[in-house]
Amino acid sequence: VTVEALRWKGDALELLDQRLLPDQFVYVTCRSAAQVAAAIRDMVVRGAPAIGCAAAFGIALEPKEASYAILAKSRPTAINLAWALERMRRAEDKKAEAEAIYAEDLAVNRAIGAQGAKLIPEGARILTYCNTGALATAGHGTALGVIRSARDKGVSVIACETRPYLQGARLTAWECMQEGIPCTLITDNMAGHFMSRGEVDLVIVGADRIAANGDTANKIGTYTLAVLAHRPSCRSTSRHRSRPSMRRWPTARRFRSKRDRRTKLPATAAYAGRRRASR
Amino acid sequence: VTVEALRWKGDALELLDQRLLPDQFVYVTCRSAAQVAAAIRDMVVRGAPAIGCAAAFGIALEPKEASYAILAKSRPTAINLAWALERMRRAEDKKAEAEAIYAEDLAVNRAIGAQGAKLIPEGARILTYCNTGALATAGHGTALGVIRSARDKGVSVIACETRPYLQGARLTAWECMQEGIPCTLITDNMAGHFMSRGEVDLVIVGADRIAANGDTANKIGTYTLAVLAHRPSCRSTSRHRSRPSMRRWPTARRFRSKRDRRTKLPATAAYAGRRRASR
Repeated sequence: VTVEALRWKGDALELLDQRLLPDQFVYVTCRSAAQVAAAIRDMVVRGAPAIGCAAAFGIALEPKEASYAILAKSRPTAINLAWALERMRRAEDKKAEAEAIYAEDLAVNRAIGAQGAKLIPEGARILTYCNTGALATAGHGTALGVIRSARDKGVSVIACETRPYLQGARLTAWECMQEGIPCTLITDNMAGHFMSRGEVDLVIVGADRIAANGDTANKIGTYTLAVLAHRPSCRSTSRHRSRPSMRRWPTARRFRSKRDRRTKLPATAAYAGRRRASR
Repeated sequence: VTVEALRWKGDALELLDQRLLPDQFVYVTCRSAAQVAAAIRDMVVRGAPAIGCAAAFGIALEPKEASYAILAKSRPTAINLAWALERMRRAEDKKAEAEAIYAEDLAVNRAIGAQGAKLIPEGARILTYCNTGALATAGHGTALGVIRSARDKGVSVIACETRPYLQGARLTAWECMQEGIPCTLITDNMAGHFMSRGEVDLVIVGADRIAANGDTANKIGTYTLAVLAHRPSCRSTSRHRSRPSMRRWPTARRFRSKRDRRTKLPATAAYAGRRRASR
């Protein structure tokens, strides 16, 4: 693991301060549950799996009743937080349990990566959103973990900056650079443009939660990417060559009002964008 | 006209420095074509119609052959620039012609506003992008001019911040505040979320250029808004009440994977978003 959001030292938890990335690379040392809770609340550590691991180590540092309450309140929307605290409560050896939660998250992420990588075509240009990498987990990452596992296929990443907190610009782009994965940073509003030009083969995003019926919750902006990825390619040959059309314009910021060519998109576990095969 | 991007003083052109908005309200005085060209290049003044007017006044200030060349190079993508310079070249009384171009742009914008306002429903919540208001023109505005003309209908504006240059955040939101038009500023990636919740009745954007066949070129991100606005409403009643679904989740950042209810959207001159009637 090159990028480590958390480092367990037995009597202390070191958290990479993600608020300072990419300018500074600083670990914050926590020796109490309250310090871990403050780090979660202040977004020193973020990403639901990483928050779950951090909370587990918070209990391991200070296995008191009050620790559960203060940690549970630190980020109520992170589903892994409540889950990890419940598991820690049932465990007898708190340190061993926290280490097990951490190790299992890493193993789960590597398994997600191995499974997901099978869906990635050779040389795919993959658009991703927010940060779902090693920084958001015990290591390797979920959606970005799939990309990491597929790096031998010569993939490249298009990272959306993810306003307003810029997890894509500050974290995903930085993480790709650490790993040597080619990465292009774009503003969120450029995603549709690149998809319409057929320059995105695949979109992979994380999920805060997924319900049994497939309903998904994630960072605001994910819905827009899903709508765009499902839209058939907008590139087409004009059937009205006699009329002036945007083809003559030198600007790259253009789109077609003509009815789009309908291409059939393959369904994958992720949102299927334009594939090379259909270009 | 409350907001004036340009003020012609007979022997000088005053340009509102839009780079400093909304923090500072400062006019830059230009007394030569080179100064006007620099102001266009540095984005003191922006918006194709305003650039066209500024260039015309630049020729009026200094009607030399060299003035045409330096102004033409200041922003080649603004179609109004080449158009205004060509018109100035043919005119005998340069000052009168520049004033006519300015007056005609103002009249055109008011006519666009009057025509467009007829399409705006009472109380419409209108999403807009970039800045297409008085700041981008001789006055009143194009797309934002339609909103301005419809203000008596109790409309409200949702302004996208428009990364990376933030024309929506810095200019459109400020301009709405000057006019007392209710305005909510959102990041660009939030537009789909508000549309999916039926909180946008209409999307109105400007256009850098429109070809005879309807092809349109505009600021990057416009295509995404068009795709989103054409998507049928994503709100629906789950047909799988027995299964856990996102309805139970307290987060606002959620969307449905179930097949959407297909609502028929009315077509307007602008991109028709969700109308109140269809909610």
